[in-house]
Amino acid sequence: MANSKYEYVKSFEVVDKLLPNTWIVVRIDGRNFHRFSDENEFNKPNDVQALNLMNSCAVAMLEEFTDIIFSYGVSDEYSFIFKRTSQFYERRASKILSTTVSLFTANYVKKWKEFFPQKEMRLTPSFDGRVVCYPSNVNLRDYLAWRQVDCHINNQYNTCFWMLVLNKDKTKKEAQDILKGTQTQDKNELLFQQFNINYSNLPAIFRKGSCVFKDKVEEIVKHTERGDPVKRLRKKVVVSHCDVIGDRFWKDHPWILDE
Amino acid sequence: MANSKYEYVKSFEVVDKLLPNTWIVVRIDGRNFHRFSDENEFNKPNDVQALNLMNSCAVAMLEEFTDIIFSYGVSDEYSFIFKRTSQFYERRASKILSTTVSLFTANYVKKWKEFFPQKEMRLTPSFDGRVVCYPSNVNLRDYLAWRQVDCHINNQYNTCFWMLVLNKDKTKKEAQDILKGTQTQDKNELLFQQFNINYSNLPAIFRKGSCVFKDKVEEIVKHTERGDPVKRLRKKVVVSHCDVIGDRFWKDHPWILDE
Amino acid sequence: MANSKYEYVKSFEVVDKLLPNTWIVVRIDGRNFHRFSDENEFNKPNDVQALNLMNSCAVAMLEEFTDIIFSYGVSDEYSFIFKRTSQFYERRASKILSTTVSLFTANYVKKWKEFFPQKEMRLTPSFDGRVVCYPSNVNLRDYLAWRQVDCHINNQYNTCFWMLVLNKDKTKKEAQDILKGTQTQDKNELLFQQFNINYSNLPAIFRKGSCVFKDKVEEIVKHTERGDPVKRLRKKVVVSHCDVIGDRFWKDHPWILDE
Amino acid sequence: MANSKYEYVKSFEVVDKLLPNTWIVVRIDGRNFHRFSDENEFNKPNDVQALNLMNSCAVAMLEEFTDIIFSYGVSDEYSFIFKRTSQFYERRASKILSTTVSLFTANYVKKWKEFFPQKEMRLTPSFDGRVVCYPSNVNLRDYLAWRQVDCHINNQYNTCFWMLVLNKDKTKKEAQDILKGTQTQDKNELLFQQFNINYSNLPAIFRKGSCVFKDKVEEIVKHTERGDPVKRLRKKVVVSHCDVIGDRFWKDHPWILDE
Repeated sequence: MANSKYEYVKSFEVVDKLLPNTWIVVRIDGRNFHRFSDENEFNKPNDVQALNLMNSCAVAMLEEFTDIIFSYGVSDEYSFIFKRTSQFYERRASKILSTTVSLFTANYVKKWKEFFPQKEMRLTPSFDGRVVCYPSNVNLRDYLAWRQVDCHINNQYNTCFWMLVLNKDKTKKEAQDILKGTQTQDKNELLFQQFNINYSNLPAIFRKGSCVFKDKVEEIVKHTERGDPVKRLRKKVVVSHCDVIGDRFWKDHPWILDE
Repeated sequence: MANSKYEYVKSFEVVDKLLPNTWIVVRIDGRNFHRFSDENEFNKPNDVQALNLMNSCAVAMLEEFTDIIFSYGVSDEYSFIFKRTSQFYERRASKILSTTVSLFTANYVKKWKEFFPQKEMRLTPSFDGRVVCYPSNVNLRDYLAWRQVDCHINNQYNTCFWMLVLNKDKTKKEAQDILKGTQTQDKNELLFQQFNINYSNLPAIFRKGSCVFKDKVEEIVKHTERGDPVKRLRKKVVVSHCDVIGDRFWKDHPWILDE
Repeated sequence: MANSKYEYVKSFEVVDKLLPNTWIVVRIDGRNFHRFSDENEFNKPNDVQALNLMNSCAVAMLEEFTDIIFSYGVSDEYSFIFKRTSQFYERRASKILSTTVSLFTANYVKKWKEFFPQKEMRLTPSFDGRVVCYPSNVNLRDYLAWRQVDCHINNQYNTCFWMLVLNKDKTKKEAQDILKGTQTQDKNELLFQQFNINYSNLPAIFRKGSCVFKDKVEEIVKHTERGDPVKRLRKKVVVSHCDVIGDRFWKDHPWILDE
Repeated sequence: MANSKYEYVKSFEVVDKLLPNTWIVVRIDGRNFHRFSDENEFNKPNDVQALNLMNSCAVAMLEEFTDIIFSYGVSDEYSFIFKRTSQFYERRASKILSTTVSLFTANYVKKWKEFFPQKEMRLTPSFDGRVVCYPSNVNLRDYLAWRQVDCHINNQYNTCFWMLVLNKDKTKKEAQDILKGTQTQDKNELLFQQFNINYSNLPAIFRKGSCVFKDKVEEIVKHTERGDPVKRLRKKVVVSHCDVIGDRFWKDHPWILDE
């Protein structure tokens, strides 16, 4: 019983290879996470354990998909950068997108207990995703800057909003009206004057988001007979909340984009 | 702090709307499920609980994504058919693909305990996926026939293979050699003569795979004063292991393709 | 001297096959034909010789590309329908688009003298094009209806506009103002009352556009010894200005969409 | 009479924007030019007037489409490079491809008489085309090197082939057999020993193909009162048969890729 009669349907599949020699970015986003975080009673404006769970999933991604050279996460979204020479799944967009979003989701559900040992997970979380190619390093860095600026704008707004709602008994509508049209500086002053909060002292994970990448870490391999440590540099996946807009980070980690 | 300077990177995103008025098929496939099923000690050639888990995930999909009018699963793969008029995510391929594969994955991990209460899940399961459009009902039915013929071919081969390995102490290599070049009829006779198995009596879930769709089910709404039941037809997601190659099923369920 | 070192650049080419089993429409449009028709002093609102030239090019297309089963032209645009089973250039969009627009353009320039023997062609005409797939016959007929309704709307407007400008000494601005907001019926009355023109008596080529397709034509093959003609039906490319919105045409020419 | 009922068919059109910040290459190729050149009795292995006609069409392209910063032609093919920042037709692939191939074709037919005043053009020439994006300058230069190496390989072979056929009375089959398996060096020696031809002395237009680009040309603007010429640099479209594989050309014309 051959399958030849129906096999023609395979010819309807589309070849979707991504342009060679471009950075491949897969950005995933929580679906209906507004409701998911309500149901699971995440802290407002940021739940550090929920962020740690996201970061832990991202670490698992870099450990499994070695072509991911950097990833950046904020709130319920994460961006994964595949190196420009990547031949992962022959650069087929559907394969790269679907496996990335699937593996991330699987880790999210599986690791939940690790980060919320007291909470039974309510609802079923899921993520959507998209793939974008960037031809130059400048474009790629601008992409990351775009996400980090977004992180800052949203976090500053949300911090003000929830302080007003939670500590000043404002309704959500009132809080919105108070913040309408305010600039960065206005919000910083509001936080300082009304809540004695210096925005720049808030945890970097909230203000800067999270970078996950392979860093060069010094480790002790063995000790000499005299007891002196013998060290070597090893690449290890790390989580960091650093600025990726300026040049500093990229100068300190040249192997990320040179790879 | 406006984001305008970097926002240009959004223009690199691709518009990937699927052709209107075509059936949208998302087929997902377990990644490295050979190893996953070994590590989790699935029964060979078929593990009925593993299949029930897959089917339960598919049911959850149809309940959440109402544009899915039919789905068909076999082994570690599942195909979801979105109706041809679907405007789900404006027919954007990335969105439809990523959310389908993500929600399925999340359910798979979450429901594991329900189907394997004694087994801690080993490894992290994930699925890849693809999207294909079919312009006509004939093409769509041929697609499903293609998958169901494949189910038959693989299951018959695997049944013979594992019977030889598990019950005749053949090595995998020996079993392969015995089966090389055999036809459907040869395999049926091998099963009957060596193992007294009538292939067509094996469970339909193994031979036919699983169909998940909305069926019209009669239910009792209330009772009259006299005690007579008042019934009505309701659409309910069901799992069935029927033949989808012939006309019978489609004549009995005309609403599926007419929708 | 092998070319292997540089041949990798071929891998950047994109596979752009069109979905099988769909009607392929290539629509081409004159670039800057407003200026081209001014420079070449085409009659307003319609230049019958310019339309005949377009139609003659379309006939040449159907004679050369046998997969084109129908084409429809109006003004400086033409739509070519390739049959849904076409394997022309393996359905590669770029090939189909580029050769269609190129061959049409070549014919346009080459045939110019035939239709404008007194006029040296001024400027260099060119056409842009696009490819669209339609999954069903209804979609395809709606496409053609869309173009023919557009032909009617534009022609009726242009007829009024140019009558006002050429015969009533209105400026273009004045003519626009007069026509602003008028309905079909208003324009018909304007033509009748001011210019004694019954719109429906204008040449069909202006009102309906042009259809080019293979019709079944009776021809005399030979004569019997008695001198009686022996006829047979032959398919021949014809130009017609018929209605393609209603069912009549399609019932009379069932082979066009059944092919 | 509104068109709204049918206008939905427009939604079947595909958005096909090319990735920003990449070099856009449109390569066009003569369709059936083997036969076209036979019918029009082009000289073998190269017809210098046919090449001059191609080059003249390319010059017309650069003059009309100012985003083309370089083009390279050999035999009946031509590649047009649009600058990486080009917003021509909003980078829509179909528009760029179709207008390029159409305008080139129109020029080819229109200019024929200029280059072949004695020959009535036989057959109707047409071109197919494709669009490819290249992310980096290295990729783009490798693309051009690929075409120029191809030019060399083909021209050397064809020169030997036609010398054998035309001057040694070999059949085409015999000529093929003689050349089978020969290397560059072998062919050069064959030309030298049998025909006293030093390959590197053949016209550069045959060996190197043709580059069309904007060069900086010194021109005399006016003369001073004393009669001294006042010069300035002006960009002018030029045709050149230079090497584009090495660095020299690109160092001498830095504005082409820097633009």
